[in-house]
Amino acid sequence: MQIVGELINASRKSVGEAIKAQDVDTIKKLARDQAEHGADYIDVNAGIFVGKEKDYMDWLIKLVQEEVDVPCCIDSPDPLVVESALKLHQDKAGVPMVNSISLESERFDNLLPIISEHKCKVVALCMSDEGMPETAEDRFAIAEKLVNVLMQKGVKADDIYVDPLVQPISTNKMYGVEFLNSIEMIMTRLEGVHTVCGMSNISFGMPKRAILNRNFVVMAVLKGLDTAIINPMDANMMANIIVAETLAGKDEFCMNFLEAYRANKFEL
Amino acid sequence: MQIVGELINASRKSVGEAIKAQDVDTIKKLARDQAEHGADYIDVNAGIFVGKEKDYMDWLIKLVQEEVDVPCCIDSPDPLVVESALKLHQDKAGVPMVNSISLESERFDNLLPIISEHKCKVVALCMSDEGMPETAEDRFAIAEKLVNVLMQKGVKADDIYVDPLVQPISTNKMYGVEFLNSIEMIMTRLEGVHTVCGMSNISFGMPKRAILNRNFVVMAVLKGLDTAIINPMDANMMANIIVAETLAGKDEFCMNFLEAYRANKFEL
Repeated sequence: MQIVGELINASRKSVGEAIKAQDVDTIKKLARDQAEHGADYIDVNAGIFVGKEKDYMDWLIKLVQEEVDVPCCIDSPDPLVVESALKLHQDKAGVPMVNSISLESERFDNLLPIISEHKCKVVALCMSDEGMPETAEDRFAIAEKLVNVLMQKGVKADDIYVDPLVQPISTNKMYGVEFLNSIEMIMTRLEGVHTVCGMSNISFGMPKRAILNRNFVVMAVLKGLDTAIINPMDANMMANIIVAETLAGKDEFCMNFLEAYRANKFEL
Repeated sequence: MQIVGELINASRKSVGEAIKAQDVDTIKKLARDQAEHGADYIDVNAGIFVGKEKDYMDWLIKLVQEEVDVPCCIDSPDPLVVESALKLHQDKAGVPMVNSISLESERFDNLLPIISEHKCKVVALCMSDEGMPETAEDRFAIAEKLVNVLMQKGVKADDIYVDPLVQPISTNKMYGVEFLNSIEMIMTRLEGVHTVCGMSNISFGMPKRAILNRNFVVMAVLKGLDTAIINPMDANMMANIIVAETLAGKDEFCMNFLEAYRANKFEL
């Protein structure tokens, strides 16, 4: 599983305040902690700052890159913000990820040339001008179109991370299953692409969200999810991912499980 | 999810000793505790006592039935043991379950008439004279034959609980996935039957077995498993089952989840 560390997000109160106060230490610590706990990408989001998103994003990207070698996940729908961040990114240990393009025509048309011109990974969000998909089939139809167009523009399958968009089970009991089935469809029918998602939307509106989120990831791993946007310092979540990969046949001789066991990662 | 409480099993040291010592209180407490924690059946197994299994099983069935209304799961491959236990069972709150018939010819021929003559549920274990199945397809082939013959003999689909037989991932990393896929095949292709299994065999030979077992149940619920042989006093396991059913679309308006939350079942 590839891990995208989700903590540097301005919509989290303490992070929003740290950004506003230009608090270098807080941001650097968040980057370092996540990298040390296994993040393969550090998500960076300054979306709440309307009119200042680009400046803050630039500042964040520079800080994170100073602190860790792990590449950034540039989390913005704004082409200007994305382009500026891509130019600043140093690619020390890998190219950045852009989060995200979608099939919404304005977003698509403006982001596509930027994605095509830079070395980067891209999250392809299953959203279109018709709105949010409901069923697994709806998600897959959008995913297929997005992947096809991206590949026609020269993006490699291995650089595409399809996000089928989790919706909360509090609004429809089948939203978990529809999402999970779309993961399976994408991973079996669209050769070579990845799937990615944030877990926490599944439990929106519910109490005890953590237990829902960390069990949902277990189901998603079984269906083929290979990238997760999570908090890498959530030991229960990280343990469940290791266990799920072992149970899902992705752990040769259970070596990862045994290594995690010896590193006390199951002492929860 | 229907829960079969697994604790009254002579192969557990303390239970074997209690049976040998004819310790009424220990056995009754195990029955009562499991019933109070949500067991729908109380599994009763005296298999380690060669030559005395029938006497001990009779004694256990009487005790458990004195203590709780919940029906027993008569856990023996021996037709004489099963027949005697079925005759003693009082069916206060439901008919007993027999665990188990299989496609092994001797076991099958001797148990089938007993099953057909008594009102009972039956576990159909996916084992044949060719030994243990390896793949999902092998499991399904045995399941299909067993279900067909049982139904020809008048057993209703709703009374059949197919156990596809979990094998340890420590011996083959794909054993979990093959088992899970067989659950899906059985639940989608053999209309009206149930699936059942013990969870703990998946983690045989591994450290930290509990975390493997309780995550495996989450995957199994997603695939359609509707009956589990577990320890109902394992709060983490029971919580995961509730959460898994909610995530798998089996919990209308998340009512079971919210009820469990209010009963503090997620305060782990």
